[in-house]
Amino acid sequence: MLREDAAPPSVMSQMDAEMGHTFADAIHIFAHKHGIAVDDIDLIGSGGQLITLTSTPVQGKHYRSNMCLGEGAIISAKTGVTTVSDYRTAEQAVGRQGAPLFAYLVGLLLHHPTRLQICITIGGITTVCFVPPDNKGGIDAIYDWDTGPGTVMIDCAYRQFGYEPGIDEIPALLNGKVCHEVVEELLKNDEFLKIRPPKTTAMEIYGNKMAQNIITMCATRGCSPADTIATLTRFTSATIVSQMLTFGPSRAAISNADIVFDGRGIYNSVLIADLRHEFPDAKFSDMKTRTGVPSNGKKAVGFAMQAMEALLGRAVSVTTNADARRPNTITGKLSPGVRWREVMEKSVAFGGRDRGWEGLPEARQLVVLQKPT
Amino acid sequence: MLREDAAPPSVMSQMDAEMGHTFADAIHIFAHKHGIAVDDIDLIGSGGQLITLTSTPVQGKHYRSNMCLGEGAIISAKTGVTTVSDYRTAEQAVGRQGAPLFAYLVGLLLHHPTRLQICITIGGITTVCFVPPDNKGGIDAIYDWDTGPGTVMIDCAYRQFGYEPGIDEIPALLNGKVCHEVVEELLKNDEFLKIRPPKTTAMEIYGNKMAQNIITMCATRGCSPADTIATLTRFTSATIVSQMLTFGPSRAAISNADIVFDGRGIYNSVLIADLRHEFPDAKFSDMKTRTGVPSNGKKAVGFAMQAMEALLGRAVSVTTNADARRPNTITGKLSPGVRWREVMEKSVAFGGRDRGWEGLPEARQLVVLQKPT
Repeated sequence: MLREDAAPPSVMSQMDAEMGHTFADAIHIFAHKHGIAVDDIDLIGSGGQLITLTSTPVQGKHYRSNMCLGEGAIISAKTGVTTVSDYRTAEQAVGRQGAPLFAYLVGLLLHHPTRLQICITIGGITTVCFVPPDNKGGIDAIYDWDTGPGTVMIDCAYRQFGYEPGIDEIPALLNGKVCHEVVEELLKNDEFLKIRPPKTTAMEIYGNKMAQNIITMCATRGCSPADTIATLTRFTSATIVSQMLTFGPSRAAISNADIVFDGRGIYNSVLIADLRHEFPDAKFSDMKTRTGVPSNGKKAVGFAMQAMEALLGRAVSVTTNADARRPNTITGKLSPGVRWREVMEKSVAFGGRDRGWEGLPEARQLVVLQKPT
Repeated sequence: MLREDAAPPSVMSQMDAEMGHTFADAIHIFAHKHGIAVDDIDLIGSGGQLITLTSTPVQGKHYRSNMCLGEGAIISAKTGVTTVSDYRTAEQAVGRQGAPLFAYLVGLLLHHPTRLQICITIGGITTVCFVPPDNKGGIDAIYDWDTGPGTVMIDCAYRQFGYEPGIDEIPALLNGKVCHEVVEELLKNDEFLKIRPPKTTAMEIYGNKMAQNIITMCATRGCSPADTIATLTRFTSATIVSQMLTFGPSRAAISNADIVFDGRGIYNSVLIADLRHEFPDAKFSDMKTRTGVPSNGKKAVGFAMQAMEALLGRAVSVTTNADARRPNTITGKLSPGVRWREVMEKSVAFGGRDRGWEGLPEARQLVVLQKPT
């Protein structure tokens, strides 16, 4: 379904239900494994599996839209727990792109009184998020966008050369020589890189097809597999760096910032070395070390937090990443569980009943408490 | 999209968004026309447009599922009003078929202390709903199912003969002679009619293709267009009558009931005469006369009511029409609007705060108040 835009409605609908049942089963298994009673859970947040996303529609011709599968109503019915899903749709409804989604979370986790924080999330695609210091707007002044490829095309090349991509590096594919001619040509011809943020991208641009083209370009120039990997890696790091310098603050400001790496790309030592090398004076760390949220757990924490925010009726504010009709919106649709009235009662009481529904202040801080090991 | 199961995810997603925007615009237009301030509306219930429905899946091979377009989050974002949508999904998640949806509404509107109430809703498809007298279970003992065709195939034949189907009857197509041979053959070979309720059907069975077959069967036997319409109409009324007698209560019980017609089929005088003729001792009326809800307004009232029930967290109870995991479920997903916390507060206060969230009794009566004209 992801590779081809071809599944008919009946198949989409079946997959939506099947993924909902699967997610619900996974919640029961997880809860059992960790000794949690499912009935005690107030809220589940489920991001779903994105199947198609129109983030930047042609004006007057298309709408911002997406399809996310993994039916929230099924999760709610099979667990009995109120479930929040369909986050992107609400974002898009007020004029946002529907991705990336986690600027607010990153801001809450990383914001600092005086230092600029930069989170570089290297998943399949790379997202950079700038959190200005509190005295320069802080969480209210966050901005983020997708810079282009993360590990997606490197992973494609791994498979092409007969290796399964994972977090362990393959010695045979290390220490290749970058083919600078290919990197220059790719950077010069890339249309996505020229677009001003806010912007988002996905496998449709930086996917299998582009990876194949690059592999062919490298092969034509006599590159070994290791050289090809080195070239793809450099192209990836070069897109991140050039996007940060083109659309972010000055090189001096970035060099004086805290840079926090996140996503599966943190295990790619060459990619990380490239980025560190570009900004040698910045202070580097990773999300897990810095905040306690593991690199594969940010989405889970983000969707859980947004589930609570949706129930509380607080807008997820990302003021600068939008051409929004309303500055903020409540994102997520709620599928009531068996304790729905109790959960609503908690929501209404949150922050003090006397203050009423208008007075609920926005979250400004998120602290991750970890179970002692 | 309805005629062929072929639209790819990107098109589905665009249509979902476009219909959401269209519905939201319609709400603004409607509210303006009737002097209602949109900001004053607490809740919108939107049934959406059903695109695909798997109501009776092959055990172990398929899931109950559906796709309903007309994005609730967009309606909520463009109106600012909390919107409830995706009713069928929650129904299906607990093992119901996802259609028909309005037994509870019909029960609330029609239930009677001592007399059986039967609602025959003749839309494209026909649904019958039996509401036993209050002293024999009343609302708790409702059952309903789709009996087969409504006006759908008659409409197809109208078009085939060069007329636009509407609520006015076409003199040239009246007074035809029923071809009983065709009616008998159709009834004998119909597989859907043999299935025990609960069951639901749609255009996939009783649609264009079957209508074309019947028109050909009639033409082969020398029927005029008026004869063909008469034959199709008789087949339709015969399916309704035979289903009621096969799976409903006894002929004596039906003859002693109040029969309430609803849907566009009430304007088909031949169809209605057939049904009246079959049960001459029953008391007949129509939904509008009986309750004030116009025949094209039942769905709107039903979705509005279910929106309120979803917010209140009361299950929509249709106990006998389900092989349900839980007897009842809260149907509908909520997309919070700008006054979400206020709306939740109202919900929590509904029925008395002191009683808490557990004590909210089910609705047992629905009264339609009409603006004086």
